[in-house]
Amino acid sequence: MQIFIPRGFEIGHFQDEFTGVTAILCKKGAVGGCDVRGGAPGTRETDLLRPEKMMDEVHAVVLSGGSAYGIASTIGVMEYLKDNGCGYKTAGKIVPIVTGAVIFDLNQKEYHYPTAEYGVKACQNASRTPDFGNIGAGRGATVGKIRGIKNACKSGIGAATLKVFGAYVTAIVVVNAMGDVIDQKSGKIIAGAKGKGGFIDTEKCLAEGEYGKLLLGTNTTIGCIITDAKLDKVQANKLASIAHNGLARTIRPVHTDYDGDAMFCLSKGSKLVPNFAILQAAAVRATEQAIVNAVSEGMKYDIIADVEDEE
Amino acid sequence: MQIFIPRGFEIGHFQDEFTGVTAILCKKGAVGGCDVRGGAPGTRETDLLRPEKMMDEVHAVVLSGGSAYGIASTIGVMEYLKDNGCGYKTAGKIVPIVTGAVIFDLNQKEYHYPTAEYGVKACQNASRTPDFGNIGAGRGATVGKIRGIKNACKSGIGAATLKVFGAYVTAIVVVNAMGDVIDQKSGKIIAGAKGKGGFIDTEKCLAEGEYGKLLLGTNTTIGCIITDAKLDKVQANKLASIAHNGLARTIRPVHTDYDGDAMFCLSKGSKLVPNFAILQAAAVRATEQAIVNAVSEGMKYDIIADVEDEE
Repeated sequence: MQIFIPRGFEIGHFQDEFTGVTAILCKKGAVGGCDVRGGAPGTRETDLLRPEKMMDEVHAVVLSGGSAYGIASTIGVMEYLKDNGCGYKTAGKIVPIVTGAVIFDLNQKEYHYPTAEYGVKACQNASRTPDFGNIGAGRGATVGKIRGIKNACKSGIGAATLKVFGAYVTAIVVVNAMGDVIDQKSGKIIAGAKGKGGFIDTEKCLAEGEYGKLLLGTNTTIGCIITDAKLDKVQANKLASIAHNGLARTIRPVHTDYDGDAMFCLSKGSKLVPNFAILQAAAVRATEQAIVNAVSEGMKYDIIADVEDEE
Repeated sequence: MQIFIPRGFEIGHFQDEFTGVTAILCKKGAVGGCDVRGGAPGTRETDLLRPEKMMDEVHAVVLSGGSAYGIASTIGVMEYLKDNGCGYKTAGKIVPIVTGAVIFDLNQKEYHYPTAEYGVKACQNASRTPDFGNIGAGRGATVGKIRGIKNACKSGIGAATLKVFGAYVTAIVVVNAMGDVIDQKSGKIIAGAKGKGGFIDTEKCLAEGEYGKLLLGTNTTIGCIITDAKLDKVQANKLASIAHNGLARTIRPVHTDYDGDAMFCLSKGSKLVPNFAILQAAAVRATEQAIVNAVSEGMKYDIIADVEDEE
């Protein structure tokens, strides 16, 4: 599945060895929505995305490592956008509308997380031909943590695009789930918690009562659907919402109290599709594939963690 | 009405000539909730306050000037709390849970807004005997802006406490509303948009079709109920929600698309009240009085604005 970034959007990453930021920019302002389904979210400026709120332009969705500390990166994204004249204009001022979410990847002894400078650099790197993999907000991502981070798999950020009736639907997802990732084609676990004989099947372990290494708030899958299909704000919220079905299909378990799963949607464009259900199906399928891509690429790397697993 | 800060809470302000920050700290973690009713909110970490989310401790509610740029101040509050060992503990790390909201007070030609350093200083100033008035997040606040900022009244941050069955219910509110503030006792406007003959009655003007100077997203009333009554998370959300009735009674109009009104609630303590409706009534009345206090004190000052009113 080819990755295509619809016109009007740019994506940039910045990372160090351990963590990073991904900025999804729509400099001219997109219609936005979101749905937060995980039990332990870390988010910024999501209230203004509710359908009844008046704001109808979003200039960036920021996905960041660093747990709640990573919200610092969004400050840099605001500064970058202001300095480039992008934002909501009122009272002679420019206020960029920057929303986003974070993952927990504090896997070093020292507190180490993206700062405002990381956000600026992610914006400076933004283009319509970004790479994906173990970069940006995906840098510190891991999956399958029921037996602690040492038995998990490295993960990353993935993307996938579907083209439907001339409109592009691209999903970008950072996969840092507590659960395992399933390949829908084979039904098999392709990344997740490992035991002596391979993947242990996290959901089965949980159902049988194993939960010893679970750490609240240390897992999260976050992402964004971007499209050049014309959507209103209610529809943008619906696509963000239904994209969670892509998580439900490919991550087991997901949306638990241990995860902070949040999906966003940005629409900028005029493409018309005969029925909204077509876009809904595309959003789910693109999300599914983006998740598989994230772990397929990320698993090539080793986990860097110098923390001990603990209760 | 005496102002009393319940045990477990501390409040600190930091401001310059034009803008500022108020940090409401509960270093040991409070049960939190919020309700965002204005059409143009600017918020951080509100998703985790929803009743179904697992997070049951909030370490700070930050009220800030600077519009969305002011979210930068929350980064400093996180740093301060971390450095003081306060936060949610997981995987050997401390993650302070810092939520909050901002008001638009970008009334200078230059962009000027609270930084992370302002957040740190607000925390350093925190105590159980804070002042209120034209300080902290209330520094740049104004009310009654239907005819532009030059015909508005200066406002500020106010507080009020009610004691019910041994429990304290304190409202802290920054009043930066588009509408006028009404004194419930007299039914009269005490602060708001001014014309040649005094207050013009904003709601009446709007009902008659005047809306020429309205600027989307430049007004907001934000605040927090703090209490030592024992609440669960659903109840904390309910108190945040019903506190908006205090806004509805005293600010006309309020909750419009031009306002970003958001109320929070934090509970830390074990006081039991015979019926939850008692706390609900107290929250509304304390909010009402806090709003009147905010403008009564704030109006003593002149508006400092070097921006021209414009469409």
